[in-house]
Amino acid sequence: MRPDAQHVRTVTSIGAGPIGGGWAAFFLARGYQVRAYLHSMTEEKAFRSVLDTAWPCLQDLGLAEGASLDNLTVTDNLEDAVSGTEFVQESAPERLEIKQELYQLLGEMVPPGVVIASSTSGLPMSDIQARCPSPERTVVGHPFNPPYLLPLVEVVGGRLTSGEALDWVMTFYRIAGKEPLRLKKEIPGFIATRLQEALWREALHMVANGEASPEDIDRALRFGPAPRMAIQGQCMAFHVACGEGGMATNLDQFGPALKLPWTRLEAPELTTELRDAMVEGCNAMAGDRHFEDLAAERDRRIVAVIKAARGENS
Amino acid sequence: MRPDAQHVRTVTSIGAGPIGGGWAAFFLARGYQVRAYLHSMTEEKAFRSVLDTAWPCLQDLGLAEGASLDNLTVTDNLEDAVSGTEFVQESAPERLEIKQELYQLLGEMVPPGVVIASSTSGLPMSDIQARCPSPERTVVGHPFNPPYLLPLVEVVGGRLTSGEALDWVMTFYRIAGKEPLRLKKEIPGFIATRLQEALWREALHMVANGEASPEDIDRALRFGPAPRMAIQGQCMAFHVACGEGGMATNLDQFGPALKLPWTRLEAPELTTELRDAMVEGCNAMAGDRHFEDLAAERDRRIVAVIKAARGENS
Repeated sequence: MRPDAQHVRTVTSIGAGPIGGGWAAFFLARGYQVRAYLHSMTEEKAFRSVLDTAWPCLQDLGLAEGASLDNLTVTDNLEDAVSGTEFVQESAPERLEIKQELYQLLGEMVPPGVVIASSTSGLPMSDIQARCPSPERTVVGHPFNPPYLLPLVEVVGGRLTSGEALDWVMTFYRIAGKEPLRLKKEIPGFIATRLQEALWREALHMVANGEASPEDIDRALRFGPAPRMAIQGQCMAFHVACGEGGMATNLDQFGPALKLPWTRLEAPELTTELRDAMVEGCNAMAGDRHFEDLAAERDRRIVAVIKAARGENS
Repeated sequence: MRPDAQHVRTVTSIGAGPIGGGWAAFFLARGYQVRAYLHSMTEEKAFRSVLDTAWPCLQDLGLAEGASLDNLTVTDNLEDAVSGTEFVQESAPERLEIKQELYQLLGEMVPPGVVIASSTSGLPMSDIQARCPSPERTVVGHPFNPPYLLPLVEVVGGRLTSGEALDWVMTFYRIAGKEPLRLKKEIPGFIATRLQEALWREALHMVANGEASPEDIDRALRFGPAPRMAIQGQCMAFHVACGEGGMATNLDQFGPALKLPWTRLEAPELTTELRDAMVEGCNAMAGDRHFEDLAAERDRRIVAVIKAARGENS
């Protein structure tokens, strides 16, 4: 029996680092009672400093009713931290043996039916849950740093996770104010990190080859594609840029450019299936909105992002 | 003899598409007299619609003194378009034979000493300038779409371009309100497109393999790394996320992750030279600012970007 996702009041955040502290701050801002577990109370100062940094931003974004830093309990007793909890977000160090041992304990201590989500950015849940006595309720819920600001949470199960636990956590994160993204497969790096990592490795190649400095890389992104990507992602950025023809025009016109050495990563074969999947996906996102409306909306929001990046509106 | 970059009054924009029209709108907003060349006057309607879309956004960002749509002349006579001009921005179709023929004409028609910049996103200037009788003043000035909003211009010369012409155009773009980025080498895709293309090809692989839909890709970017990238780029995002230790900690701690299959692009060897270049580059960007101040500034600006992406402030 799961708690009612709509009426969860008490959550547990495990971990004293920027991710554990960031999740605690996020849940407090959304009005939850938060029980934070630290491996040792010597970590409390660092943990509280994450909260102090996060809180003014969360206030600026708008607190939920009843939200308060007073709704926080900090403990180094794991049993205490999970007692009466209705959801656990685990952000322990990224080492498999630490996580496996922790999930063995949590599998017994956490009230039955309560979902346990791991912030892991790289370890597969199938491995993390290997020694857990109740693995069906363990999931990956991978946030982006800083987790109190960036809404994305990538959700995927391990081999022993139940589909119903995944459904529950998707609903819970949505109600909590996150943007959960459910993965179709348990792939290394999930989706967002894979995209970022491809870009990052190309950047490292360029620095290694004397083609660009770190400052060149950052300026190229900040003043070039990144503001647009923050508004539209990349598929819709290309779809809208190609006017009436959209993604179909993009792939038919620039398809040959996929063979050019514009990055060290080779593109996949542009099969009819891939082309159609891209085109249909973009058409579905556009819905019945005309590209000119989408472009006008893009522009209005890019103006706001540019002002934000300049430090105006902030 | 170049015009004085500080006192350029009249510029030419060649091309009726979103890039040519976008540049014309940008220069008008910055207070220049703009002579626009269209291949045919039948393109005028499409050209003017780019301007109509761009203008309200440019007004919102702030027009320069004297800026007006009335400062525009439109012609399909190339000689007229470049007569008395002090700078030419060329955004003709991306076909080498078209550009080569155009640069042969421009090399004679454009007043001596006036710099001619190409918006090309993929053709090397060494090829474009091959038939130009005055190639030393021809450069790449590659904008990002929409060019009236995104500030980046990637600048690089061809084999016959003079360093002094490159210096001039860097100064001119800066005065005009752009963020010019001078490339160290003439590489395919320049810097920003290479970064974007690596990410794009990884995205296509994921869609081709049923790992993600186009909507998954866009949501992952918009709600995950992209807002941070718009503020900090990627090098500083990692530098600041790693606290006191910065990029050194990032590479020492996550260096082994560069070997993991987190993208289909293989990373370069993390040599001492590469590590030091990354660390020194980030330290130089940080200057004497403490990471906590950089994190606080990042957070304030991410809040503003999130509001912008939501459509607030817009």
